[in-house]
Amino acid sequence: MIKVTGYAAKHSFSRLKPYEFERDDPAAHEVEIDVLYCGVCHSDIHQVKNEWSNTVYPCVPGHEIVGRVTRVGPAVKRHAVGDMVGVGCMIDSCGQCAACKDGDQNYCGSPNSWLATYNGPMKPKAKAGGENIYGRDNTFGGYSNIVVVKEDFVLKIPANLRPEVAAPILCAGVTTWSPMRRWGVKAGDKVGVIGMGGLGHMAAKLAKALGAEVTLFTTTKDKIAEAEKLGFKAILEKDKDAFEKLEASFDFILSTVPEKHDLNPFTALLKQDAVLCVVGALEPLAPLDNMQLAQMRRSVAGSLIGNLAETQDVLDFCAEHGIGPEIEMIRIQDINDAYKKVEKGDVRFRYVIDMASLKEEIAGEA
Amino acid sequence: MIKVTGYAAKHSFSRLKPYEFERDDPAAHEVEIDVLYCGVCHSDIHQVKNEWSNTVYPCVPGHEIVGRVTRVGPAVKRHAVGDMVGVGCMIDSCGQCAACKDGDQNYCGSPNSWLATYNGPMKPKAKAGGENIYGRDNTFGGYSNIVVVKEDFVLKIPANLRPEVAAPILCAGVTTWSPMRRWGVKAGDKVGVIGMGGLGHMAAKLAKALGAEVTLFTTTKDKIAEAEKLGFKAILEKDKDAFEKLEASFDFILSTVPEKHDLNPFTALLKQDAVLCVVGALEPLAPLDNMQLAQMRRSVAGSLIGNLAETQDVLDFCAEHGIGPEIEMIRIQDINDAYKKVEKGDVRFRYVIDMASLKEEIAGEA
Repeated sequence: MIKVTGYAAKHSFSRLKPYEFERDDPAAHEVEIDVLYCGVCHSDIHQVKNEWSNTVYPCVPGHEIVGRVTRVGPAVKRHAVGDMVGVGCMIDSCGQCAACKDGDQNYCGSPNSWLATYNGPMKPKAKAGGENIYGRDNTFGGYSNIVVVKEDFVLKIPANLRPEVAAPILCAGVTTWSPMRRWGVKAGDKVGVIGMGGLGHMAAKLAKALGAEVTLFTTTKDKIAEAEKLGFKAILEKDKDAFEKLEASFDFILSTVPEKHDLNPFTALLKQDAVLCVVGALEPLAPLDNMQLAQMRRSVAGSLIGNLAETQDVLDFCAEHGIGPEIEMIRIQDINDAYKKVEKGDVRFRYVIDMASLKEEIAGEA
Repeated sequence: MIKVTGYAAKHSFSRLKPYEFERDDPAAHEVEIDVLYCGVCHSDIHQVKNEWSNTVYPCVPGHEIVGRVTRVGPAVKRHAVGDMVGVGCMIDSCGQCAACKDGDQNYCGSPNSWLATYNGPMKPKAKAGGENIYGRDNTFGGYSNIVVVKEDFVLKIPANLRPEVAAPILCAGVTTWSPMRRWGVKAGDKVGVIGMGGLGHMAAKLAKALGAEVTLFTTTKDKIAEAEKLGFKAILEKDKDAFEKLEASFDFILSTVPEKHDLNPFTALLKQDAVLCVVGALEPLAPLDNMQLAQMRRSVAGSLIGNLAETQDVLDFCAEHGIGPEIEMIRIQDINDAYKKVEKGDVRFRYVIDMASLKEEIAGEA
């Protein structure tokens, strides 16, 4: 048993506070990781507040984890002590279903779906006919000093990628990368990105590095200039004239808005046969105008994170192209304030927790 | 000039009544057709009642037209006097845009989009910046004794297809055929069809002839037995147990319901990466649950009729496989009652007007 310290919410209404728990020592195929950095994802907030009505408490969030391998199980082949590694949203999947066999662990079709890095199986046993193939009703994420993860679910952080910058790529990066690959975004395409937060600004950078011409859409006036500073065109969502000029001109649009949002102004911007993919919101979408979809055989799709190969791929792609998220480092003691700022859209553009702050606290120095 | 008699609605609230008008003699590339049969499409009713807020009056509906060529313009090459031919939803398109060049006239990207068989350009000049590339604000459809149409928009009715059965294939057939081809429905696929009206029963027959295993979904208890008579499994939409068993099992689902409808029970039935395509409704869809889409990277798409090649293709496919819609023949004098029955879902499954009834009326015999 390993003694671990994390930050946890005990109830939907409570702040994150220090929380001590135990993890099992690494089994044959597992690695132990000393957590150095952990990104703060908007979904951490949804989950802590039980906004998806599925939160298991105590809730230790964190699925954008970067750290160094400190111990490996006897059968581990992919990683060695001292390696800089990452863990994203998943830490296990059934490995037996059609999706897993195709390498799409994020669409695992087992009764429990995949095992999330925190909050347990994606389909808890109550929804899986009482089954729990993972034997764990809850899991504790990366807002903690140590994680223990199956080696196959541990990614390699390229040497020329700063580890703190790599952290948000493990969720925000792959969540936007996967659909862009799936729907074939390529050089010369016109790509729209709705929302300019953690996911949106990352999507824009990835699409640009793929050679696409990127337009960001935002509801925040200040972000127009910020987008330009990052090298992107940006348009205010209420600018009807601009929207009219862009009708039927986009090859692909990605919505990264983390809440219900009217997509109809955007489906009108899609070319014939083009797709608008929603990765931000998991709740019901506002009613879609099917006339607008049918008129040009447009589609609206959803996509959930990405598989392990895509996650390694986007880490390598970022290293190769010298890109990564814009991050602001915070101490874990400031996490509750950080959540408020994320909800207000005040972060530019992703908070990353420096886990040195947690270690100082454990050592009685914080 | 040709003197023509049709049935027209003068206002959104008025019944269809006999209406006399003129058509131009066939120009160089046009053919004149003696209308023998015309299918009754649910969209005729939407249009007559101005339910899409774009009806131009007087409104002579009818876009499932079958008849015999009686005259051809001097440059016509594809058709000859005496040929049995068909006309569907379109009678012209710009021919210059990317979609037209790809043969997708039904997604014509010109300011006015394509020219509809009745009701004029799909985008009237008010919506096209005052432009009207077709020079016609209104067009009169197949509820009339004679039509004159550009030869490229006239289809060939295969010899072994009864002309009255061919009529609904020109809209109901191709509208369901086009998306099934687009999304690659093939032998062994599980295909769901929502709604068992003119489009739905036709979709089921086409999918079955493609080798798919078809399940029909209906809200009408009586239609379960009727579906079985036609050789299809059918499930009541309120049968939650049946839905649960079918979760994530369909390769493709087509919604043919001609009005707003909750699609969330059906997106749950799609396999990973599968598509639910809506061809019935043109209005806003009920809110979609994006969690359900994202979880398996499912899509919801719209599709509008089909192109000319697909229309010829589905006519030939029906002839080859010996399939066609179930039709009930009516006299044009009974059209207003027929509309009421269509709205109540009382038709099994498509009304086709026998235009002999109109000719008797013109001759003073009706």
